[in-house]
Formats: sequence, C-alpha cells, structure tokens
Amino acid sequence: MYRAEVRIGLKKGVADPEGANTHKTLKLLGFEDIREVHTVKLFTLDVDTDSEAAAKDEVERACRRLLANPVIHDYQVTLQKA
Amino acid sequence: MYRAEVRIGLKKGVADPEGANTHKTLKLLGFEDIREVHTVKLFTLDVDTDSEAAAKDEVERACRRLLANPVIHDYQVTLQKA
Repeated sequence: MYRAEVRIGLKKGVADPEGANTHKTLKLLGFEDIREVHTVKLFTLDVDTDSEAAAKDEVERACRRLLANPVIHDYQVTLQKA
Repeated sequence: MYRAEVRIGLKKGVADPEGANTHKTLKLLGFEDIREVHTVKLFTLDVDTDSEAAAKDEVERACRRLLANPVIHDYQVTLQKA
C-alpha cells in the first residue's frame, strides 16, 4: 500500500480569489504582517499496490482524468509506503 | 520574511464528503486500486518578519481566528525562511 499526496496549486498568473479574500479578511482582523495568501488543494490517496512505479502511474492518471485541470493547475505527487 | 504552510485537515471521525465523492468517481472511472481519498486544505502565507517565533505566533493566531474551525479541523503549521 502506498499513500500518495497530490498537491494541486494554481498556475502562475491564475487568479486565486479565495487566497486574496482570505488575505483581505486577515488584514481587517489586524494581521498586518501577512503579505500574501495562496490556497492549494491537497488530496491523499491510498493506493493498494506493492509497486511504487504502479502507484505513481495510477495517481498521475487520476490527476489527469479527474483531480487537476491542466488549464489552470499544476500538480505534484509524492508517495510514501504505508 | 517567512513562508508558512498551514495544513488544515478534518479531525478523525468528521465526514469528508468531497473525499468520498472523489473516491466514488475515481472508481467509476476504473481506478480500482485507490482505496481511500481524503482532502486537506492548504494555505501558504508570507509573513513579513525576521523572527521565526513571531511568524509562528502570527500564523497560529490566524488559524484560530479565521483559517481553521476547531470543532472539525486539525491544523499544522510549518515555516520556511523565504
């Protein structure tokens, strides 16, 4: 079994309204030292296989098919034996 | 300047409908080896200070005030000098 962590972030230049609004709200609450806020989506997937290569392939296919939108997202996959 | 990464996950026992639906959809798409899917919310915050302790304090206060809901969320903060 492998546990994959898929980190799905917005590409450079893509607007991050959730991050921007979180930043604005933190400012209103008095957090003056916080300069930038960005949001990232993270999925953890448990993959039932003993091969790290097969797990990586399965998770990257899942990213391309469902989890990430290649127009706006970059993604990184990290694997850990579980 | 410090870059903080705030990882906001659901506490054990709290339903994760987004993860469950992602899992269901991956199954329908033929990803038979994926056993569990969980979602985590990640914020990156740039904190304008030279003190790591001050940055950590600022970010943890931001978690308690705005980013995390203590009823359902656990959070972890990691800092990196930027």
